[in-house]
Amino acid sequence: MNATAESSRHVDEDRLRDDIETNGEYGAISIGEGHGRTVLPGTKANQQVREYFVERLEDAGLDVRTDSVGNIAGRWVPDGADPDAAAVAAGSHLDSVPEGGIFDGVLGVYSALEAVRALQESDADLDRPVEVVCFTEEEGTRFSNGVLGSAVATGQRSVDDALALEDHDGVSLDDALTEIGAKGSGQLDASAWDSWLEVHVEQSKRLEKANVPVGIVSSITGTIRCSVEIDGEANHAGCAAMKDRTDALAAASELVLDVEQATEDVVAEKGDSVVGTVGQLDISPNAVNVVPGRAELGIDIRDVDYESMETIVGEVEASLARLETERGVDTTFERPYDIAPIDMSDRCTSALDEAAAESGVSTMELHSGAGHDTMHVAKVTDSGMIFAPSRDGISHNPLEWTDWESCATATRVLTGGIARLARSA
Amino acid sequence: MNATAESSRHVDEDRLRDDIETNGEYGAISIGEGHGRTVLPGTKANQQVREYFVERLEDAGLDVRTDSVGNIAGRWVPDGADPDAAAVAAGSHLDSVPEGGIFDGVLGVYSALEAVRALQESDADLDRPVEVVCFTEEEGTRFSNGVLGSAVATGQRSVDDALALEDHDGVSLDDALTEIGAKGSGQLDASAWDSWLEVHVEQSKRLEKANVPVGIVSSITGTIRCSVEIDGEANHAGCAAMKDRTDALAAASELVLDVEQATEDVVAEKGDSVVGTVGQLDISPNAVNVVPGRAELGIDIRDVDYESMETIVGEVEASLARLETERGVDTTFERPYDIAPIDMSDRCTSALDEAAAESGVSTMELHSGAGHDTMHVAKVTDSGMIFAPSRDGISHNPLEWTDWESCATATRVLTGGIARLARSA
Repeated sequence: MNATAESSRHVDEDRLRDDIETNGEYGAISIGEGHGRTVLPGTKANQQVREYFVERLEDAGLDVRTDSVGNIAGRWVPDGADPDAAAVAAGSHLDSVPEGGIFDGVLGVYSALEAVRALQESDADLDRPVEVVCFTEEEGTRFSNGVLGSAVATGQRSVDDALALEDHDGVSLDDALTEIGAKGSGQLDASAWDSWLEVHVEQSKRLEKANVPVGIVSSITGTIRCSVEIDGEANHAGCAAMKDRTDALAAASELVLDVEQATEDVVAEKGDSVVGTVGQLDISPNAVNVVPGRAELGIDIRDVDYESMETIVGEVEASLARLETERGVDTTFERPYDIAPIDMSDRCTSALDEAAAESGVSTMELHSGAGHDTMHVAKVTDSGMIFAPSRDGISHNPLEWTDWESCATATRVLTGGIARLARSA
Repeated sequence: MNATAESSRHVDEDRLRDDIETNGEYGAISIGEGHGRTVLPGTKANQQVREYFVERLEDAGLDVRTDSVGNIAGRWVPDGADPDAAAVAAGSHLDSVPEGGIFDGVLGVYSALEAVRALQESDADLDRPVEVVCFTEEEGTRFSNGVLGSAVATGQRSVDDALALEDHDGVSLDDALTEIGAKGSGQLDASAWDSWLEVHVEQSKRLEKANVPVGIVSSITGTIRCSVEIDGEANHAGCAAMKDRTDALAAASELVLDVEQATEDVVAEKGDSVVGTVGQLDISPNAVNVVPGRAELGIDIRDVDYESMETIVGEVEASLARLETERGVDTTFERPYDIAPIDMSDRCTSALDEAAAESGVSTMELHSGAGHDTMHVAKVTDSGMIFAPSRDGISHNPLEWTDWESCATATRVLTGGIARLARSA
């Protein structure tokens, strides 16, 4: 057995499980079935998960620092490693959506810590420091649209800008972090890392369907969100003749179907990584006896190929132009959120493939349709992702579940991946 | 000049205007432009409009009674009339929608009172008593779907059933009427009337477009309301491939367009009295990054021809069956509200046509797409309706407006119509 596989053998499923279960007790909810938790950034539950995490990092002998926006990094310099070499980092996030599950983000953080413990116990011969990282507000449920801490750590958002963000009650991130003792100093710099790895639950059914324990992510889709308003004329449903109407909902319905058709056209041509969704529709006045005067729609378009996403956006704009002409509505179009797809680095993907092979773990290559902190980090350093199977594909839900054995298997591949990357100084 | 035209000449535009303006001060709102008011049944504002109305009836020497559900009738027995003969009744309602206008309903009530005053002052030679009527909760904003008082007065809903109705806070109509001193005794019996006339604002633009001051209503459309639920599967907008989705909003969008197309097909075949509207649509979870799992729709179908309405309902059901097959959604269909179209009586329509001709008022025949108390009353006695022009067709809105001269002109036709009907004992 080679050194990488040896380190992976030290991954302790029970220790990993204990950490994830203990973390899951903070902010736990008792709604319906499953194991739910609500851990919004800057709350008491968030304070608890942070304090437990710091404690566990220190238990493992890591040197812990917290930056100005609450990103936490624990640093381990292996015996014989160059303390000035760029570190290999791994992690994810500990915040959750409201009534979320116990694995999303948490598995990525604690699998990274478990990997370090396994590397320590196997006396792995490493050249680089290793860092275990927890980013602030990945889910975007309180202060931002999400992936906030990684946006700051990769220089895409300034510390001051992030700290000034406010929740619905006007509480700033600055105040919320200060309140729970989670505001540190300085700024975590992901560009200084040699490389980055993140383990995450898959949140879809591809691994489960294929009965494969580990997914190696090839790329993360980009996301374009469009906000559309369609203005017609509200009118009495009994008194306005069909020919005299400018019905905002009828126009919106055409747009919904146009988005679906445009996406299916791209699927037919280029394969089914592309998705287009109208998830949000509000009409007014929304009364059964009034012709709708206004419709507001939220559209989400994702693919690993940015050009395909642009094709669909173009079809949205063409649909709106047609609706203005044919139905007499007024429309507005905005594009408030636009993140390009990003490929994982060959170096990281190869390290993970080789680590899996050495440990006898079968894998499949897949893309991520969900956004992750890695999509920011991959812009500034070599990055890779590992997916663990989600039961029934369910996530953001107390029924979210990944078997403990699968958690451990993904952690073994991570451990091997870190070992390979950290030996190449 | 004959006797009918002589009575109409006594209609006093200023006196009518004073009553409508005074009534409009109760529940007045100061939102935006126009003259708004909110007078929901059983509220303080409703108490005020009722008390002012009773006072004005008594000022004119009418004998006032209030029934168990708050319907108010003022009775005048002209000198020489047979007090036991069936009365000619006229009126409408004094409740409003939230943030409604000052004419809807009010014009019908106070034009009836003004007609009586004009008939009194012209010493009209009448054989029948005349009653001026205000029905409870025509708009259906608090306790019911509307036309409540006339449903009771025509025996289509029992007094006990009506009194037990509760608003969103669990307050019963019984308690609300008692609270404001508006609960009387007995039951107004519309079937005992010789005939019934109602003046109302048109709420559409046909009179304005044709530049005709008075509309004589030929029929009131029926209304069928359908409640539809479409269940698909909520899913992650990034992780669920297009082929794996059961998108409730995409299915709902097809239904919206099918309703529109089915209605336009009937318009093409039979003319534009038919209307079909999807006025209400709620989707869940209604988040931009989640495939919609559920859609609830409210559909409103109206025509003067019930068969055409049934044709469209049939198309709704066919559309749902197709969506179940083609898109795999589950659907439910209910029909909670179903009122057949009803024609006005030839006797009343002729009386109004002749009265208009004698007063030199030009008229046009039109149907009512809006529901009115008259659609209940017409089931139990001869009934007719007069429309006054609505500026820009606007109603249920502080911008609702009918010129005072138009109010008076409609009242002159009403006065002549009552005189003709009340002389035929």
